[in-house]
Amino acid sequence: MKKFINEIDAVMRESLGGMVDAHPDLLQIQFEPTFMSRAMRATSKVALLSGGGSGHEPLHCGFIGQGMLDAACPGQVFTSPTPDQMLAAAEAVNTGKGVLFIVKNYSGDLMNFQMAAEMLEIENATVLVNDDVAVENSTHTTGRRGVAGTLIVEKTVGAAAEQGATLAECKAVGDRVNKATASMGVAFTSCVVPAAGRATFDIGADEMEVGVGIHGEPGRRRSKVRPASVIVDELLDSILRDLQPQKGSELLLHVNGFGGTPLMELYLLYHDAAKQLRSMGYKPVRSLVGNYTTSLEMAGASLTVTMLDAEIRQLWDAPVHTAALRW
Amino acid sequence: MKKFINEIDAVMRESLGGMVDAHPDLLQIQFEPTFMSRAMRATSKVALLSGGGSGHEPLHCGFIGQGMLDAACPGQVFTSPTPDQMLAAAEAVNTGKGVLFIVKNYSGDLMNFQMAAEMLEIENATVLVNDDVAVENSTHTTGRRGVAGTLIVEKTVGAAAEQGATLAECKAVGDRVNKATASMGVAFTSCVVPAAGRATFDIGADEMEVGVGIHGEPGRRRSKVRPASVIVDELLDSILRDLQPQKGSELLLHVNGFGGTPLMELYLLYHDAAKQLRSMGYKPVRSLVGNYTTSLEMAGASLTVTMLDAEIRQLWDAPVHTAALRW
Repeated sequence: MKKFINEIDAVMRESLGGMVDAHPDLLQIQFEPTFMSRAMRATSKVALLSGGGSGHEPLHCGFIGQGMLDAACPGQVFTSPTPDQMLAAAEAVNTGKGVLFIVKNYSGDLMNFQMAAEMLEIENATVLVNDDVAVENSTHTTGRRGVAGTLIVEKTVGAAAEQGATLAECKAVGDRVNKATASMGVAFTSCVVPAAGRATFDIGADEMEVGVGIHGEPGRRRSKVRPASVIVDELLDSILRDLQPQKGSELLLHVNGFGGTPLMELYLLYHDAAKQLRSMGYKPVRSLVGNYTTSLEMAGASLTVTMLDAEIRQLWDAPVHTAALRW
Repeated sequence: MKKFINEIDAVMRESLGGMVDAHPDLLQIQFEPTFMSRAMRATSKVALLSGGGSGHEPLHCGFIGQGMLDAACPGQVFTSPTPDQMLAAAEAVNTGKGVLFIVKNYSGDLMNFQMAAEMLEIENATVLVNDDVAVENSTHTTGRRGVAGTLIVEKTVGAAAEQGATLAECKAVGDRVNKATASMGVAFTSCVVPAAGRATFDIGADEMEVGVGIHGEPGRRRSKVRPASVIVDELLDSILRDLQPQKGSELLLHVNGFGGTPLMELYLLYHDAAKQLRSMGYKPVRSLVGNYTTSLEMAGASLTVTMLDAEIRQLWDAPVHTAALRW
């Protein structure tokens, strides 16, 4: 295992510490229990809190800031954070308008966030993100997994909260964006979890995992690597079969790298996907291309499509000021 | 070779096309000869033009826009662009105030930019970036290589040009920032150039290349992988030996990933480097952490330090609106 680390047990603390060190204007951190929050906490809005296993950076800590999250609870790599982290974070960022948990659909995360929601003596609600159309049920999941669409939920709900939406309204936006969003990805290589020290899965030199999860968990099938446009067609077919957007619909198209694929290839995927969508009568009018929901250094990428309407588009376009997304 | 591509010969066109497709508000492209420029061309300022081999994305096309470059000429992967590209780009973005070429110090780039500068019937000047302190002379270089410090030159000169600096003043800023900047990196893995189809170099499962170049070219030596803090100390030692900043100096610290290293590790490197700089009496007051000057999917990272003064800090902080840098 070749990684920039000192000791396995110190990876999280040093990495999170470095992030706050690099963005002191944006972020602050507390340890034991661990959560990251805005350097300047909001004073009067619904508080948005997310979290999950680490290893998906910049998700979620990179999305803390004006127009997006108020706090995030990082677990160990690919391991859910614990309810005490969520409780401490929720109490720290609550402004009296309630707390919305944004949770990716994995059994561990769901259980721990539910426990925190029950223990929390503050009005709260939960948006469960399950945008991955590859498989129903999976290694760590009952139902569909939450993947790269999560940041689109966090961005749009973040804008709504900043604009004064109530807790119920924020939850409604989140649920609606989640339903309007679908994702699917493929992987060329595995990643190496630091504490494990070896590849999460084996894969042949000419193979790809179609429908892979963001922890390297299996998808639909193993296949030979195909040309980019063939991969794109398969991913879009599954995504559009799920969303069933009307012809002429305006779409947000997000190409997400899993960490080990060059930006050159991600833009090539965008090229092929946008072309294919246009040829089918859709309008990809908003884009996001880059490594946003990663799986450590896994090579591969996913496509995410969100059906836009005037409200969702406005929420997406609203200003955001975080370490990883800014406009 | 597992990559998201269709045909080798189409990689550049499709990837560049996808980039413009994803950022139509920011970018436009012309092929034959190929150059990318701002969607809204500036009308009255010194025009900044860079370029070089592809494979380092988001450098340089990701830095086109308000407050940074006016145009960039991408060559094939790790291959210099040609003078006809530079001439066409310079003529397209010239506003009558002259053209400044920002060139990384590689023999091919330097020769072609010099040829373009001589042929161009517009007043022009060149800033040559050579921030890599790892080695004098190298596979593709006489003298030191230009690496991740290039974006700091492009950002600061970009701000100066936007603020109305003359061609001579822009060149002076670029030369001064280049002298105030030093970089050095290590690699854990090679990358695979699409047209070659195999790893650029072989490296053992427990080895790293210390002082690696951004084309995978050799650095100072091959060594066993060491803890992050030991790597950081060696890189900073070489960088500070070159820059010799006064104790108490304010510094910009840039941790650059080469493409295949997770953000978690890059922030851990930032943690170790900032801590080490502070312990030596320096003040790392500005940061940039991420994959900005890449070598396709190579795993590894570099550190770059720029000595700040009031002018350089102001130019760094000035607004920028590009695909890859925005504040």
